[in-house]
Amino acid sequence: VTTEQDDPAFAGYALGDLASRLGGLIHGDRDCLIRGVAVIQQASPGTVTFLANPRYRKYLAGTSASAVILSSDELDACPVSAWVVDNPYLTFAKVAALLHAAGDFREGVHETAFVSPDSRLDETAWIGPYSVVDSGAEIGARVQIGPGCYVGEDCFIGEASRLVAHVVLCGGTRIGKRALVHPGVVIGSDGFGMANDGGTWIKIPQLGRVWIGDDVEIGANTTIDRGTIEDTVIEDGVKLDNQIQVGHNVRIGAQTAIAGCVGIAGSTTIGKRCAIGGGAGIGGHLEIGDGVQITGMCMVTKSIREPGIYSSGMPAQPNRIWRRGIGYFRRIEELVRRVQTLEEKLARHD
Amino acid sequence: VTTEQDDPAFAGYALGDLASRLGGLIHGDRDCLIRGVAVIQQASPGTVTFLANPRYRKYLAGTSASAVILSSDELDACPVSAWVVDNPYLTFAKVAALLHAAGDFREGVHETAFVSPDSRLDETAWIGPYSVVDSGAEIGARVQIGPGCYVGEDCFIGEASRLVAHVVLCGGTRIGKRALVHPGVVIGSDGFGMANDGGTWIKIPQLGRVWIGDDVEIGANTTIDRGTIEDTVIEDGVKLDNQIQVGHNVRIGAQTAIAGCVGIAGSTTIGKRCAIGGGAGIGGHLEIGDGVQITGMCMVTKSIREPGIYSSGMPAQPNRIWRRGIGYFRRIEELVRRVQTLEEKLARHD
Amino acid sequence: VTTEQDDPAFAGYALGDLASRLGGLIHGDRDCLIRGVAVIQQASPGTVTFLANPRYRKYLAGTSASAVILSSDELDACPVSAWVVDNPYLTFAKVAALLHAAGDFREGVHETAFVSPDSRLDETAWIGPYSVVDSGAEIGARVQIGPGCYVGEDCFIGEASRLVAHVVLCGGTRIGKRALVHPGVVIGSDGFGMANDGGTWIKIPQLGRVWIGDDVEIGANTTIDRGTIEDTVIEDGVKLDNQIQVGHNVRIGAQTAIAGCVGIAGSTTIGKRCAIGGGAGIGGHLEIGDGVQITGMCMVTKSIREPGIYSSGMPAQPNRIWRRGIGYFRRIEELVRRVQTLEEKLARHD
Repeated sequence: VTTEQDDPAFAGYALGDLASRLGGLIHGDRDCLIRGVAVIQQASPGTVTFLANPRYRKYLAGTSASAVILSSDELDACPVSAWVVDNPYLTFAKVAALLHAAGDFREGVHETAFVSPDSRLDETAWIGPYSVVDSGAEIGARVQIGPGCYVGEDCFIGEASRLVAHVVLCGGTRIGKRALVHPGVVIGSDGFGMANDGGTWIKIPQLGRVWIGDDVEIGANTTIDRGTIEDTVIEDGVKLDNQIQVGHNVRIGAQTAIAGCVGIAGSTTIGKRCAIGGGAGIGGHLEIGDGVQITGMCMVTKSIREPGIYSSGMPAQPNRIWRRGIGYFRRIEELVRRVQTLEEKLARHD
Repeated sequence: VTTEQDDPAFAGYALGDLASRLGGLIHGDRDCLIRGVAVIQQASPGTVTFLANPRYRKYLAGTSASAVILSSDELDACPVSAWVVDNPYLTFAKVAALLHAAGDFREGVHETAFVSPDSRLDETAWIGPYSVVDSGAEIGARVQIGPGCYVGEDCFIGEASRLVAHVVLCGGTRIGKRALVHPGVVIGSDGFGMANDGGTWIKIPQLGRVWIGDDVEIGANTTIDRGTIEDTVIEDGVKLDNQIQVGHNVRIGAQTAIAGCVGIAGSTTIGKRCAIGGGAGIGGHLEIGDGVQITGMCMVTKSIREPGIYSSGMPAQPNRIWRRGIGYFRRIEELVRRVQTLEEKLARHD
Repeated sequence: VTTEQDDPAFAGYALGDLASRLGGLIHGDRDCLIRGVAVIQQASPGTVTFLANPRYRKYLAGTSASAVILSSDELDACPVSAWVVDNPYLTFAKVAALLHAAGDFREGVHETAFVSPDSRLDETAWIGPYSVVDSGAEIGARVQIGPGCYVGEDCFIGEASRLVAHVVLCGGTRIGKRALVHPGVVIGSDGFGMANDGGTWIKIPQLGRVWIGDDVEIGANTTIDRGTIEDTVIEDGVKLDNQIQVGHNVRIGAQTAIAGCVGIAGSTTIGKRCAIGGGAGIGGHLEIGDGVQITGMCMVTKSIREPGIYSSGMPAQPNRIWRRGIGYFRRIEELVRRVQTLEEKLARHD
């Protein structure tokens, strides 16, 4: 990755110029030069850091950054130049993207890649070492296919999308523009569909495909199954973390973000702008509405139609206390009966 | 995938002929031609759909399918030709398999594949691009090894099995006939075995292998570890969904189906015809009997010997209610004491 | 894997010689020859087995092993030669490693591998079929890179480390000495970092790397994300099982062992010598101290600073009982109120 910051001749951006470009107000030295970003507790001069999570407030007084992106509430405590914005994390994202550009686009087909003669490849796309583009596939402008990928028959990949490495797209998968797909991802594998015939499982052919919109990011080793008949759909701007399992016929609405290790069973629909915490499990054939937030390790067994935050699970306790709690829980029915008995006795007393 | 349905000259099967072949009774037009399958809410003329899950009953009246596979209970409400059977989902599976045949078998070794000279390869097998077959491996008739697979030393793959793409079989793995192994699967990696030597972990060599029976399906990115000394065993007809982890020395009985994201710790035995829901976790050194059903996200810490349905976990609630519930649960011991005190006081009153 | 045991001319080690080498006392025939290891219930003459887990005590009387490694408590019940040690499992690990040596080291670059001319490769390293070593990477002495791996730009791999097959190291990843990395592992993929800009997600560039110490083992399909700015760090001797997800900026302390399917969210620090059970989920920005043990499927939402065992979760119950328990739990607030009412009434009685 080559960035301006890596260039020894790059002196940096003036802090004031960054604020003019990205918004916000500078309190302090508008002319100080910013060459990179840093975390607050380990920043060095020439970097800009940020304060968004209150857990890190304790590091503010001692930071060695040249400037700190923060909200106006934190301004008084800032020992260096302050860049005051409404959403410090968002401004940090933008300045980091500006200072540290993404990897260069490459072009052409690596000498060791195998591209089927009846695929259509934009001349500005790059196919890396040992990657395979199968027959009928269509690869758009500036698409980057890293080493060891497999793009199956009749797949479509829209412009400027990137498969980092070792990505598998099974036949017919459609990916929109500017997708970022991390290593080990499998898209379009068969859904888990079968019918029981007197004790023996009969496979249901999985005839649908996977349709992925624009600006989608998919984390390492995540799997997305093809639909049974209709398509599995991931709408624009969806962000999926690592090791997520998306079952067949699922639809995930635009701009929904899902953290790692979530499992979504087949035929479930998730709305737009949802946020789902890591390790959550969502049952099959459910409807989760727009704007629903689900916390980590939550077990979702019914549809959720109202926006809001939903949770389940028992946070960790010392083992001895947990064991006792489990015991009491298992006898909760007995406890209810004891209370009922008391109520009846007391009623007789009254 | 070439199917009869894709052939423009294919007019379809007569509905009555399908019923003669697969069982059931037609109410309506036995001569209508069926070219494909569809879901009930989006079917078009020329397709057959099915009604098995009551959630979809609401779509029956408006379906545009030429025929619906359903049970006799639903017959009266069917607006088009009805194909009445005992198990609509099973009949649907069979008709879908008939109309949409699996991918063609290919033969030969791709020019970019690497096959060790001392492996044994049936001449009807196919080895795809960039796949490796290592020394001593034996590949049966019509086996299909897709792109980017690794078949380790002394592996055995029985006839008509298919590794879709990017599958890793570590040395000594044995797979039976007609297996279907999806991308990213790793079979035969080392189990997690080590002994602690005064604070330092010492690895236990993993000397066993993985033995997989006939007609097994294994979902994308699932991992199955080799045994420590004996083999890890997956019996005939087992169906594993995506991202399942099977620890060393585990045995899974015939025709058991396991949904995605399940983890099975080492040395556990699971019986035949079990059904295990997504995200369940099963501890090590346990015995799960035949015919046990375990619901999604269930935490199994003890052996289960009786058939039946087993569950655990707390379904999602609005976050505020969940937080309150957790608080009460943490004080349940105090509540039990309060009830006890009340009982003692009341006893003194009596 | 070639081992002395596989050599038909290898007669075995005398039991007494093994004890002299690895410690412990022999009760019985010091001269009996040991050719291999076995599990207690299926051992044959010429093998040594062990008894560590009381679940297996029932097999001791009938074992056909030539010798059993056990603790002095079990000595009286041993029907064959006994090898008495303090930690039978540890001695078993050592004798298994002695009798069954790890795979031979290979050297050189496979004819189908692609090694960038500006990488640095020790001449004793091995690069297997279809593996890629990208520019600037440095590969140490006796490193073994199996088939289909990708070693990204500027990666470093220390001496005698082994990538079994299909491992992806994204650019800048650093791995120490004697690492063992199983198939499907992805190290250095982007962390899940983004900021919300009025409903649209903006990616936070992930600029840190992954730093892995010496003697680390990483299980199949595990993923470890690069840090946002600082590095994600896995210290010496850490053992990770299969399908673990390690988020960005996480630090895992030396000799910590983590079982399969665990998810660790970003910026969490885990101490040294911790043991984390399968399927546990650990939230982001937490601190887990040294020597903490977390049981399987535990949900960790707060920092844990004291050593000890921590747990959560509700073990499986028959479905009917579980459903009733859930119902009572949902009405626990009502139960608390009823107890309170009783207390007030009784107070008026007194």
